[in-house]
Amino acid sequence: MNYLTKIPRQLSLGLLFLILSMSAYGKKPVLIAEDRLSEIETIRDLALKSDLGYELLESLTTEVGARMAGSPQDPLAVKWATKKLKALGFDKVWTEPVTFPSWKRGVETASIVSPYPQPLYITALGGSVSTPSDGLIGQVVHFTDLDALKKSSIQQVRGKIVFISNRMQRFRNGRGYGPAVAARGNGAHEASAKGAIAIVLRSVGTDNHRVPHTGGMRYKEGIKRIPAAALSNPDADQLVRILARGKSLKLKLNIGAHPAGEYTSYNVIGEITGSSKPKEVVIIGGHLDSWDLGTGAVDDGAGVAIAMAAATIIKKSKIKPKRSIRVILWANEEQGLFGAKAYAKAHHQDLENHIIGAESDFGAGRIYEFSSLFKEEDKPFIEQLKRVFRPLGIKYANNEATPGPDLIPLFTSGMSVFGLAQDGWDYFDLHHTADDTCDKVEPAAMAQNVAAYTVFSLMMADYAGDLKRPTKQKTKQQKEK
Amino acid sequence: MNYLTKIPRQLSLGLLFLILSMSAYGKKPVLIAEDRLSEIETIRDLALKSDLGYELLESLTTEVGARMAGSPQDPLAVKWATKKLKALGFDKVWTEPVTFPSWKRGVETASIVSPYPQPLYITALGGSVSTPSDGLIGQVVHFTDLDALKKSSIQQVRGKIVFISNRMQRFRNGRGYGPAVAARGNGAHEASAKGAIAIVLRSVGTDNHRVPHTGGMRYKEGIKRIPAAALSNPDADQLVRILARGKSLKLKLNIGAHPAGEYTSYNVIGEITGSSKPKEVVIIGGHLDSWDLGTGAVDDGAGVAIAMAAATIIKKSKIKPKRSIRVILWANEEQGLFGAKAYAKAHHQDLENHIIGAESDFGAGRIYEFSSLFKEEDKPFIEQLKRVFRPLGIKYANNEATPGPDLIPLFTSGMSVFGLAQDGWDYFDLHHTADDTCDKVEPAAMAQNVAAYTVFSLMMADYAGDLKRPTKQKTKQQKEK
Repeated sequence: MNYLTKIPRQLSLGLLFLILSMSAYGKKPVLIAEDRLSEIETIRDLALKSDLGYELLESLTTEVGARMAGSPQDPLAVKWATKKLKALGFDKVWTEPVTFPSWKRGVETASIVSPYPQPLYITALGGSVSTPSDGLIGQVVHFTDLDALKKSSIQQVRGKIVFISNRMQRFRNGRGYGPAVAARGNGAHEASAKGAIAIVLRSVGTDNHRVPHTGGMRYKEGIKRIPAAALSNPDADQLVRILARGKSLKLKLNIGAHPAGEYTSYNVIGEITGSSKPKEVVIIGGHLDSWDLGTGAVDDGAGVAIAMAAATIIKKSKIKPKRSIRVILWANEEQGLFGAKAYAKAHHQDLENHIIGAESDFGAGRIYEFSSLFKEEDKPFIEQLKRVFRPLGIKYANNEATPGPDLIPLFTSGMSVFGLAQDGWDYFDLHHTADDTCDKVEPAAMAQNVAAYTVFSLMMADYAGDLKRPTKQKTKQQKEK
Repeated sequence: MNYLTKIPRQLSLGLLFLILSMSAYGKKPVLIAEDRLSEIETIRDLALKSDLGYELLESLTTEVGARMAGSPQDPLAVKWATKKLKALGFDKVWTEPVTFPSWKRGVETASIVSPYPQPLYITALGGSVSTPSDGLIGQVVHFTDLDALKKSSIQQVRGKIVFISNRMQRFRNGRGYGPAVAARGNGAHEASAKGAIAIVLRSVGTDNHRVPHTGGMRYKEGIKRIPAAALSNPDADQLVRILARGKSLKLKLNIGAHPAGEYTSYNVIGEITGSSKPKEVVIIGGHLDSWDLGTGAVDDGAGVAIAMAAATIIKKSKIKPKRSIRVILWANEEQGLFGAKAYAKAHHQDLENHIIGAESDFGAGRIYEFSSLFKEEDKPFIEQLKRVFRPLGIKYANNEATPGPDLIPLFTSGMSVFGLAQDGWDYFDLHHTADDTCDKVEPAAMAQNVAAYTVFSLMMADYAGDLKRPTKQKTKQQKEK
């Protein structure tokens, strides 16, 4: 007996439709139901009125302050985050170890020896070796950018202090960073390969304050490690003005920075368990470490606080997300994505369950657009996202989302990512400086970010499709390589 | 024979009018003639197109940089100014000695010991004594302003580090400075009188950068001298946030500042000799010294450069001012008007010939109004001044001009002064900080200032009246006392 025969015609048509719908599931996933969308919108609006994001930022930057990976504040930050996630009511809270070589800052002074003796404001780049303890003195050889250094001769550079003077340009999306930061990352080994005794470069930053910008740099195997430091923008201007007079310029540098052995910190993780697909996770987060000069408000206390607040607001609401929402507070992003790499390694057998991720690591400016990385069949979902993001002033950008820094290892392993682009107009005024403090953050902008992350988390947790990245279409990042 | 009888009637009437005019001279001085006003307007417009002011500022801040009175840069600044005034073609250039007790800055570090250990950005106040060489640690007692400290008890303060947290308010005319700066000047002896071991105060400044503001302070005879330092605004905010948690706050301070013996610097003076009243002088100028943290661009390289450029533009023009125009680049304003006092003392027998003065010591913002201190009979001259200043966007304010700091001793001795009020909206973002560098100065605004000082100098040099201050009417400053 075919049980269909016993069912009234009307009902049987309904069942037929259901079966047909289910058979189409792989290609055209069911969108989020209207009443669920309304619930998500309610939570979004609650988040927009909540101060929780700013409160968490204030707490982290006040009670821990700067928290450079491997510094005495590193374990305090881990403790703060663990305690806070538990207090906020996350379903699960745990840590995962992250081991890396640590580095310590020491004395850092610089001055013009001739022609016009005066002090300069510098800071060692992260990873720099020290000068001799009584400093070093050298003549300056000036290059307008890294390319000019690359094209120079050994005769020009040998025995001198290289100075690279190009200035980072200001854009809302921060695209001036890439071209400028190359000198920070690679200047030291390029200069050393030509016999330089040290390198000083204009801070990679858009401000005009006497607060130099630190940041990571790397040496190359087989090339002598030379001290590397950044000058504040006004100090770099000063050197350029002196050099424009055709004067021979001598500097004295004294840098006490040095490697400080292996250190183990922790990724701190909190999860809101999904109601129907608990093993599948949507990842949000920011990195818990900062540089040591400021208190790490925009880099990346904001990201940490936004993710924690968004998940908390969801947890405290009536809504139960279908997938789990995992907040990862990444360890040691600044010195080389150590937390991100450790996580990807530890979870390599579980990558299938990492559905999609977004990282907030570009300050606390308002989000103005979102980008996806959807297969063709998931594109109808974009319309629903547009609707829910629109009241936050967030428009759809494109289907070419790229990963935040800590999502790169998971992204490389195949996880999809989502972009929530923030206004970064003043981000590089503060980035990696002493000025990165919580007074620079606007609470209302934080709340808008938190609201956007509640929307992202809930929509991704509930969407029925697998959200896998398109396989054939090359992503923007792959195209650029 | 009466010679009038031989003169035709028409001519005799003319002569009669002339004699009557001359007899009225004391009360109604002849205004500046129309063709002369036109010449002055031509020079004003030339000045507005000249880069000389900015060029001088750039030269001083680049080639000398910071030039704290008594520091190794002090003689370099004197040399720079003397050489420059001669090269610019001043008729006379000379120096006059100024002796004062000097002070040296040393190490200056601070940190929170508990409850949340972290470094703070501070700078010693000018004149501060040192802590013990290994620093001092103390519990913080917090006062919202100097008055609250004054009202406190010895029990509250004894053995503690006083922290004063009120923030300077921002106004175009800088009137937030007075109420805030009292804590800087008097906080140390008020705190010490109640047994405090040190004082830290929020920087007297309107910015949000991690660049503390230094500035002069004084001790009182018979009260123990305790170390005094300013915290950057974000650091003061941090302490306030911690105190708001009801936590006991302990700081460590290490300050190496100390008195450094008597030093002799120089007022540097350049003069454009007057054509018909060479002994009578109109004074313009700024102070040559700066604090040591920045390169003294807005305080007071701008004033120095504006006065030098204005007089130079006059000297290089065809016009010959009737009175002499004297540019005084005052020594050591910052530590107590030492140059101003020495000048007034050295010239006390010649004060009659000091007709009127104006000092530029409020940055390089545009001038928006002028004020006079004229007797009733000189008030018609205000209309001529209005006309010549108007195209520069400078309006008449009132007849209650007050002296710039270095003119106070001359003013007190009876000299008249003139006010050229600058827009100081951002002046206290930079004042006495490392951020006071020449990139903050807008060349076009400098040129407007230079043009205004050419107008002031020429109009005062040519005006026939004696320009003496009103004797009966109390000045605004006297009223306030």
